Amino acid sequence: MDANTILEALGNDSRRRILSLLAKKPCYVSEISFALKMAPKAVIEHLEKLEKAGLIKSFEDGRRRYYYINQNMRVEVSIAPHMFQTSVISREAPDLDKAIKEARRLFDEINRSNFFRNISDIYRNLMNLREAQERFSMIQNYIFSKFSEMFERFLDEVERFVEDDYERIVLLGLSKGARSAVEIAEEFGLPYTEVEKAIERLKNKGIVREVMRDGKFEFAIKC
Amino acid sequence: MDANTILEALGNDSRRRILSLLAKKPCYVSEISFALKMAPKAVIEHLEKLEKAGLIKSFEDGRRRYYYINQNMRVEVSIAPHMFQTSVISREAPDLDKAIKEARRLFDEINRSNFFRNISDIYRNLMNLREAQERFSMIQNYIFSKFSEMFERFLDEVERFVEDDYERIVLLGLSKGARSAVEIAEEFGLPYTEVEKAIERLKNKGIVREVMRDGKFEFAIKC
Repeated sequence: MDANTILEALGNDSRRRILSLLAKKPCYVSEISFALKMAPKAVIEHLEKLEKAGLIKSFEDGRRRYYYINQNMRVEVSIAPHMFQTSVISREAPDLDKAIKEARRLFDEINRSNFFRNISDIYRNLMNLREAQERFSMIQNYIFSKFSEMFERFLDEVERFVEDDYERIVLLGLSKGARSAVEIAEEFGLPYTEVEKAIERLKNKGIVREVMRDGKFEFAIKC
Repeated sequence: MDANTILEALGNDSRRRILSLLAKKPCYVSEISFALKMAPKAVIEHLEKLEKAGLIKSFEDGRRRYYYINQNMRVEVSIAPHMFQTSVISREAPDLDKAIKEARRLFDEINRSNFFRNISDIYRNLMNLREAQERFSMIQNYIFSKFSEMFERFLDEVERFVEDDYERIVLLGLSKGARSAVEIAEEFGLPYTEVEKAIERLKNKGIVREVMRDGKFEFAIKC
């Protein structure tokens, strides 16, 4: 996977909006076109670029072609006065415990050498820092894939509890950080009263609870 | 700092090439134009976008305006079937030891709960994973700023040892991963024989050494 191709694909607002939409569920062209108020022709062009960059794939279902995100991947860009570095991480730490221990050891070595006698000392420290960076990137990728795996399980579990689309969307919204009925209604373009009713039903089922934050009532999934 | 504006700025090949160039040293417009074979007008437009995104700044020196990277920042994009997340991290872990310990604790909790009784269990695990992710991002940012700080020290130290631009560039090239005279000559557009001579001088000063890798001779900074 090439960082440049991916940054090119991500460097466009419409394509980022399409990715956000596909992260909710697989969609077909006219669905995307309607949701994002974008001409179908433009949607098709953006989908082609995203597909070329390897970020999405499609499948046919009846007469429709659905597009979906088929990647589990992280892109990291590091920018500093003497550095510009882009990387795509899809590799996971093979042994997580070892990776954390090793990162810890590198840190200790880095912190021990606050005193540099010569250029070799500084350079060795640079190499240690670079290695620590790589190890942490792999750890991060592990966490991320664990997160998205867990999120799939969460979605499966949601299906067992919900009775309609409103309840489904409320749980999805809350899981992604929404905190009030208004927020969810606006984010997903739903009528406020329906969202509120769905929240009430989920509270009665014991899945959602009311919390007080900064003097205001908000909602959260029980945990 | 807004992830969208930054991804927009990074989503263009010319701008990424300009950033790579500025990571070597501050440059003025016609210098960039010459190095990247780009019309000055285009260079100016790209510089404006990079400046607007907050990635570069400029200063005047005599009759010239120099552009340089003024940021220490990481951009992370996470892509998965149910997730599309972009973030800009410029915050460091306030207490590194604590951050690592806390990440470790979260991990233990995540690994302990392989058995999920209900949606709350799964959701709690999701929240733990998200928190672990944030902590590791801050740790990564700490490492990265430590790295670029150390790199500045390395460049300062280099100045004390080098006698000319060739030696300077050889050390820079080797520090950024180059392994042979040919690689350095090509990357920086220098005559091969001069690069070779500079390497020889640095070997005699005891800063560079010859290493054998996969049956071939390569060069590395001593450490």
